[in-house]
Amino acid sequence: MENSENKTREQIGFDILLNIDGEDGKKVIESLQDIAPDLGKFILEFTFADIYQRDVLDWKQREIITITSLLTLGGLEKQLDVHINAALNVGVTKQEIVEAFIQCSPYVGFPRVLNAIFVAKEVFSRRKEA
Amino acid sequence: MENSENKTREQIGFDILLNIDGEDGKKVIESLQDIAPDLGKFILEFTFADIYQRDVLDWKQREIITITSLLTLGGLEKQLDVHINAALNVGVTKQEIVEAFIQCSPYVGFPRVLNAIFVAKEVFSRRKEA
Amino acid sequence: MENSENKTREQIGFDILLNIDGEDGKKVIESLQDIAPDLGKFILEFTFADIYQRDVLDWKQREIITITSLLTLGGLEKQLDVHINAALNVGVTKQEIVEAFIQCSPYVGFPRVLNAIFVAKEVFSRRKEA
Amino acid sequence: MENSENKTREQIGFDILLNIDGEDGKKVIESLQDIAPDLGKFILEFTFADIYQRDVLDWKQREIITITSLLTLGGLEKQLDVHINAALNVGVTKQEIVEAFIQCSPYVGFPRVLNAIFVAKEVFSRRKEA
Amino acid sequence: MENSENKTREQIGFDILLNIDGEDGKKVIESLQDIAPDLGKFILEFTFADIYQRDVLDWKQREIITITSLLTLGGLEKQLDVHINAALNVGVTKQEIVEAFIQCSPYVGFPRVLNAIFVAKEVFSRRKEA
Amino acid sequence: MENSENKTREQIGFDILLNIDGEDGKKVIESLQDIAPDLGKFILEFTFADIYQRDVLDWKQREIITITSLLTLGGLEKQLDVHINAALNVGVTKQEIVEAFIQCSPYVGFPRVLNAIFVAKEVFSRRKEA
Repeated sequence: MENSENKTREQIGFDILLNIDGEDGKKVIESLQDIAPDLGKFILEFTFADIYQRDVLDWKQREIITITSLLTLGGLEKQLDVHINAALNVGVTKQEIVEAFIQCSPYVGFPRVLNAIFVAKEVFSRRKEA
Repeated sequence: MENSENKTREQIGFDILLNIDGEDGKKVIESLQDIAPDLGKFILEFTFADIYQRDVLDWKQREIITITSLLTLGGLEKQLDVHINAALNVGVTKQEIVEAFIQCSPYVGFPRVLNAIFVAKEVFSRRKEA
Repeated sequence: MENSENKTREQIGFDILLNIDGEDGKKVIESLQDIAPDLGKFILEFTFADIYQRDVLDWKQREIITITSLLTLGGLEKQLDVHINAALNVGVTKQEIVEAFIQCSPYVGFPRVLNAIFVAKEVFSRRKEA
Repeated sequence: MENSENKTREQIGFDILLNIDGEDGKKVIESLQDIAPDLGKFILEFTFADIYQRDVLDWKQREIITITSLLTLGGLEKQLDVHINAALNVGVTKQEIVEAFIQCSPYVGFPRVLNAIFVAKEVFSRRKEA
Repeated sequence: MENSENKTREQIGFDILLNIDGEDGKKVIESLQDIAPDLGKFILEFTFADIYQRDVLDWKQREIITITSLLTLGGLEKQLDVHINAALNVGVTKQEIVEAFIQCSPYVGFPRVLNAIFVAKEVFSRRKEA
Repeated sequence: MENSENKTREQIGFDILLNIDGEDGKKVIESLQDIAPDLGKFILEFTFADIYQRDVLDWKQREIITITSLLTLGGLEKQLDVHINAALNVGVTKQEIVEAFIQCSPYVGFPRVLNAIFVAKEVFSRRKEA
């Protein structure tokens, strides 16, 4: 883990989580502390330290893949909210997010696309107000 | 719709399908002729003429989104085969395909990622032989 | 498109949407205007102009198929609400809707059937009050 | 289905299974005998004796609902094969089966619809030969 | 089935439901009375009288399997709530519930695991207050 | 699993994989070497070193949870094959595996349960011959 001196994988993951998901991601990890702290640790270590540090795809591409997966799985509106925010944080534009969801229509069907669009609508409007 | 003069949406879609999916995509459409020709027409018109001609995302990004959705839905190995080929056809590299699948691991779980990787392995080896 | 004179596919689709889904459907399309208007257009054109105008199955049969799919996909309570209403609008009876959901039990399992039944319960009671 | 004097629910279910699914259904039940005979019994009792004997919807409608659910769940090609046969056995036409699958396109996406169509194609051709 | 004398399957199922799910399960069945009473009957008969009375696995093991399935299906937070309660009622510990969910992470992905954990958090806190 | 002096997480994971999944698991990891070796590494590190070494649940319980998840996800027959074998390797009996699948029927529906049972039937018969 070259860019880390003496940091643990968990600490590296936490730094990356903060960079990508911001406060929303931090809150998810904190809300696990009293019930399943190790789950938070695994998310930081595996998702953020192991996966998001990899080459070949940049963070913008990774977040587009992530929100596509979340839309497709269905029933994950809270996580879509966090990762639509994350996508915007790393430089994906609103138009690209909407367009990625539209691209899913022929493969996943309109209903899950609509759900994702309405989460995006909420995230976009919350960020405008802030 | 610059490339269309007097072409129907179906013809436009077919041209794009040929460009992206190549022979594999053509075979899918042909195999529908005796049982559900209109379904083939809708796929050409909606997926290819309506969606793949849009701006904001290029074909490489669209195919990465498509294979992510197919991996996530599960049970769609045939379509993954066609679209991994399509991704390579429009310039996505083998490494990028594999990396997109790895990015899905924390969100979709390893089993569906493994299925997609093994389809990619088959596609990659078939193209090397050809 | 014989019944359409000079109407666009979008306009034809909108007329059919109004006939089937009523105000609820119109609201979904309207709520897309500021974020993804083309998605609304595709839903009108593909779902309503292309599919709902087809022969072989009537609208009652089509809505039974649609609510079965929505129940089975899971996590689509809002769309189930719209289409349970639509089913009633085109003449499917409350009993038939409930019975269609019960028919899904051995194939989809009780939990998703329960979710759909509770959406139906809400729709039925809202229509009684109106 | 006149109600079966002294027959057990399992026997009633078996008679109905034979009427609807024919030999294919019988084989499924038989193939469970050495590993999970009670599962076969529950399928006969619950699915066929409890559900298929109910009023409100006839067998044609029930089979259309069943194949819609199986298409939507995905990864159930064997069961789709049995129930496309069953649909034909109880009087659903080939055109209606294909049309039911097309109706699912905007809600479930094309890939699972394609899988179901290709199963139907196989079933239709097998029955023509027989 | 020793505990049954002249009880119907429905009554046996209801007794078991009360033992396992308690008031929450009873409310689900009651809420079906005005819309789909037979669905409640089938749940009592098939799920509770037929399945939960079986040998080989005890109720603790059965509830762990049930909450695993509900987590994996996704979009079933209400039913997870009932069955996390049920798991605690039959003697599964809070730690075992959390651990079962963590075990799903590599197979189902973190997002559905997180949803299940947050339902568990709510159930645990509600029971502490009571 | 005494904790492995100077072994890497990958080596620890590999030892546990061998203990649980045996040759089948080893083959999965090996088949990833030429296409996505890091994916194999993540599976060994996260699934086996991180998760399977944890307390609270033993390996038998963990494998029952895993095969329940795989059955419920659907379309994962290859992984079910590996993990039904793994379950038998760590001491889950054939009867318990079948019973776990039957327990899923009311929640997941019969079709995915049937698919899992038929995979189990194949695994059981292959082990008898060996």
